Amino acid sequence: MKKLVNAIDDVLTESLLGFGAAHPDIVTVSLDPKFVARSGAPAKGKVALISGGGSGHEPLHAGFVGTGMLDAACPGEVFTSPTPDQMVAAAEAVDGGKGVLFIVKNYSGDVMNFEMAAEMIGDDCATVLTNDDVAVEDSLYTQGRRGVAGTILVEKIVGAAAEQGADLARCKDLGDRVNAATGSMGIALTSCTVPAAGKPTFDVGGDEMEMGVGIHGEPGRRRVKLMAADDIAEEMVGAICESLTPKSGDGIMLMTNGMGGTPLMELYLMHHAAQKQCEDRGLRIARAVVGNYCTSLDMAGCSLTLTKVDDEMLSLWDAPVHTAALRWGL
Amino acid sequence: MKKLVNAIDDVLTESLLGFGAAHPDIVTVSLDPKFVARSGAPAKGKVALISGGGSGHEPLHAGFVGTGMLDAACPGEVFTSPTPDQMVAAAEAVDGGKGVLFIVKNYSGDVMNFEMAAEMIGDDCATVLTNDDVAVEDSLYTQGRRGVAGTILVEKIVGAAAEQGADLARCKDLGDRVNAATGSMGIALTSCTVPAAGKPTFDVGGDEMEMGVGIHGEPGRRRVKLMAADDIAEEMVGAICESLTPKSGDGIMLMTNGMGGTPLMELYLMHHAAQKQCEDRGLRIARAVVGNYCTSLDMAGCSLTLTKVDDEMLSLWDAPVHTAALRWGL
Repeated sequence: MKKLVNAIDDVLTESLLGFGAAHPDIVTVSLDPKFVARSGAPAKGKVALISGGGSGHEPLHAGFVGTGMLDAACPGEVFTSPTPDQMVAAAEAVDGGKGVLFIVKNYSGDVMNFEMAAEMIGDDCATVLTNDDVAVEDSLYTQGRRGVAGTILVEKIVGAAAEQGADLARCKDLGDRVNAATGSMGIALTSCTVPAAGKPTFDVGGDEMEMGVGIHGEPGRRRVKLMAADDIAEEMVGAICESLTPKSGDGIMLMTNGMGGTPLMELYLMHHAAQKQCEDRGLRIARAVVGNYCTSLDMAGCSLTLTKVDDEMLSLWDAPVHTAALRWGL
Repeated sequence: MKKLVNAIDDVLTESLLGFGAAHPDIVTVSLDPKFVARSGAPAKGKVALISGGGSGHEPLHAGFVGTGMLDAACPGEVFTSPTPDQMVAAAEAVDGGKGVLFIVKNYSGDVMNFEMAAEMIGDDCATVLTNDDVAVEDSLYTQGRRGVAGTILVEKIVGAAAEQGADLARCKDLGDRVNAATGSMGIALTSCTVPAAGKPTFDVGGDEMEMGVGIHGEPGRRRVKLMAADDIAEEMVGAICESLTPKSGDGIMLMTNGMGGTPLMELYLMHHAAQKQCEDRGLRIARAVVGNYCTSLDMAGCSLTLTKVDDEMLSLWDAPVHTAALRWGL
């Protein structure tokens, strides 16, 4: 295993300390229990948005904490759910008096622990469950579809609404609507390596790739021979459109997301391939995002996310945001 | 070779098309000859900043084209200098009547080609040469020190000054000052793979790393056994400080830069390690930047950059910027 680490047990703590040191104007980092909160929290008079999940998907979620997006993020150990005490402590730190909205990717551990936390918090807590991965129904750690990069669209759009004063019911409804309008699929050229495991999570031949891979290296639809970027894009966009059923003329957001080990030059090339597939289907690309946003440690590969957007969603996407990983207008 | 590509000959063109499509509000892409210009160019009444170099270092340089930073970037093929006709065409497209400043990383091919372009443009053209890499004197493609991630500091700080109306002489002087105040060093855990070569540029054992590597995989100071992050940071910060000779109490900017294949979780951990080294030397971290900014295709590894900053440089660093890879205040 070749990684920039000291002791394996300290990876998450040291990474969080570096994150806090790099962005002192945006976040504060708590280590016991572990959560990242926006500076100056609680932001009074707004719904508090809290997400979280296993680490190893950076910048998800801590990189999206800040004005106009999340109020807090709870990182678990690598690919391991955070615990209810982290979520409750984060909620206490950022609750501004208008309730707490959990945004949770659909993995059994995350769902269970956020449910326990929600029960401890009581009535002023609602949850949006994201399940945008169209690759497979049920998976290694999931009943139903997995939540992946589409979660970022939910966090940004609901984050803007909360910043503008939307109440808890409207934030919950909006988050469910964005999730329902979103589909994603991923591929892996290589496995990731979990630091504590010290070896690749799965084997993939030198001329093979995993079509429909999960963000923890879970199996996808099939193991195939390495394909050209255009053919990969055709299969991914095809699978997403089969689920989302957009109509010709629909406006979409297209996110081309890197899995962590794939350089930007390839991601932009992949984005070009995906764009052609969308345009061939008559879709209008209203907004585009390219980069490493929902990663799987050092996995080489990418995912595509399409969201059918309306004017309200676009306006909320464009609203000012100031986080470590997304920033404009501030 | 496992990459997201179609035909090898089309990698640069397709990546540029994806870049242009993803950022239509920031740039326009020209394919013949190849250059990326900021939208609405020329910006009248300001010095035009142009950089460029071989591709494979994305987001450098095209990702830094936009308001408050570069006016244009000229991408060569992967790890290959752009040609004078690209630079001249870019200059014609973005020259706003106050002269043209080239910002050039110190590699023999880049230096020669930008010199030829400067001669063709004439008197209203000056050049800042960056050579921040303290690892080695002279290298595979370089007489003297190599220019690496510190170039981004030069582009941002001079870009802000140009936006505020600084004339060509002041932009040139400021760029030289920032470069002189900057030192960098990199390490590689794995080699990169150039698409046209199809195999790794260099061999490195499963338990080895290259200390002082160049951004094209050029040899560094020595091949060593894999080290802990803290020890890597100690050697890198030590080497940079030996060259920069900062005094205790000095304010610095610290950039922890990924080489392309290393995930953000490790970069933040590495940033924490680097920060401790700087603080042990009594340095005050005035600004921090962590992410993939000057990459080497899919190489796993990182570089550290320290810049001794004064108030003027900090104020120009903080000034608004709107590019694909750096954005705030706009």
